[in-house]
Amino acid sequence: MISQNQNKLIRSLHQKKFREQHSLFIIEGVRSIKEAINTNAQFEIGISTESFSEKNSDLIRAINPEIVSEEDIKRLSPSVTPSGVLAVYKIPQFNKPNLDQNFIYLDHVADPGNMGTILRTATWFGINQIILSEGCTDPFNPKVVRSAMGAHFHLSWIGHLDLNTLNNHLIIGADSRGSTIDTFNSFSEKWCLVMGSEAHGISGNIISVLDKTVAIPMHGIGESLNIGVAMGVFLHHLTKQPVVSQCQ
Amino acid sequence: MISQNQNKLIRSLHQKKFREQHSLFIIEGVRSIKEAINTNAQFEIGISTESFSEKNSDLIRAINPEIVSEEDIKRLSPSVTPSGVLAVYKIPQFNKPNLDQNFIYLDHVADPGNMGTILRTATWFGINQIILSEGCTDPFNPKVVRSAMGAHFHLSWIGHLDLNTLNNHLIIGADSRGSTIDTFNSFSEKWCLVMGSEAHGISGNIISVLDKTVAIPMHGIGESLNIGVAMGVFLHHLTKQPVVSQCQ
Repeated sequence: MISQNQNKLIRSLHQKKFREQHSLFIIEGVRSIKEAINTNAQFEIGISTESFSEKNSDLIRAINPEIVSEEDIKRLSPSVTPSGVLAVYKIPQFNKPNLDQNFIYLDHVADPGNMGTILRTATWFGINQIILSEGCTDPFNPKVVRSAMGAHFHLSWIGHLDLNTLNNHLIIGADSRGSTIDTFNSFSEKWCLVMGSEAHGISGNIISVLDKTVAIPMHGIGESLNIGVAMGVFLHHLTKQPVVSQCQ
Repeated sequence: MISQNQNKLIRSLHQKKFREQHSLFIIEGVRSIKEAINTNAQFEIGISTESFSEKNSDLIRAINPEIVSEEDIKRLSPSVTPSGVLAVYKIPQFNKPNLDQNFIYLDHVADPGNMGTILRTATWFGINQIILSEGCTDPFNPKVVRSAMGAHFHLSWIGHLDLNTLNNHLIIGADSRGSTIDTFNSFSEKWCLVMGSEAHGISGNIISVLDKTVAIPMHGIGESLNIGVAMGVFLHHLTKQPVVSQCQ
């Protein structure tokens, strides 16, 4: 059984101010919790339903959760349809950003599902430093965590940073009026990829800092790609090894 | 004011069997409804709140919706957070698939948000024919429609089709054990890209039909990319113009 205090703590973590106060966040779902376990993240509380625990003995052995009723997990989970397991972990403490590595800059990305997909995609392509503008959703929001599928534990740094600090980086903005990403070939330079919000694009004050704008060639119809999809296409190109010319 | 019958009809369209019975579906949000208007889709019913209509005079002129209360739209909308405008449109009638064009095959894609992102991404890259296996979510489900952002009106065909019908297509499976997509260069052939579900990959009975499997090179860490992101990367490559060698 979980205590009244644990109960109250878990519920409070639905809100940003309590996540910050306690430096804790909620993770749900098998895949995300497995990533937390694999990276030795600091575990605090685990709860699961009986029916979940019967089907997932490996995970249950690893986090040894309190068994609660279906009703209880519905009350404690921030999801409309809880997965049957919920864990509370310490928010990772990040050191300073590493200015010798690449960055992604998110400009007013407010949708939690998109933010989660972005983190999952970034870490998959090996980009582990994320700069957030004011107005971005909290990356430890439970909806972000759910769609990030454990990416939080692979980030080396996430937070606010003035783009002007990045003196030696090529600042690349994703913008439909930019030149096609297919011709980008400055693979030896460090870069920071700036993604604007789906609704408003890149903010005016950021546009003046950009060294270059890039776009994905459209072959069909539509106003735009989803921001996570677009970022995936850009990162696939930017993380490619340069093609060595086969000409003699 | 909307009638009792319209009220009942809109509510019924939250369910697949009534969407099929009436051949109608619900669209919400400014961007999706604008796509419906631009493509001359067959409009049936529109409702909006007063506060929405005051801020969106263009859209209001185009569909002339009934004004309803915030409470009414909450009751009628399938969304937890309705956008303030909801329209009912005829489900487009599709002719036969065109066997001279490319296809996407979705194998047990059950998540509505992913299906919507897939449709939006496919039509953006000019792939307008989508084959659905059994077990896929209904593409006219309101959650699919919301994340597809009007892509439904750019599809030329969507439905069930036996992959063996595609004699002249290269059947390409997205599979993490496949060869890197970067080396794919059969740009003169017609193809069908098969995307499996995030949880289970491509089904056993489909694997035997594949001509080739392709993967996206991973440079970081993570179990997989989101299916919509992965498809975006594949389609960006597959719809590229082949590079003409610059060697003499």
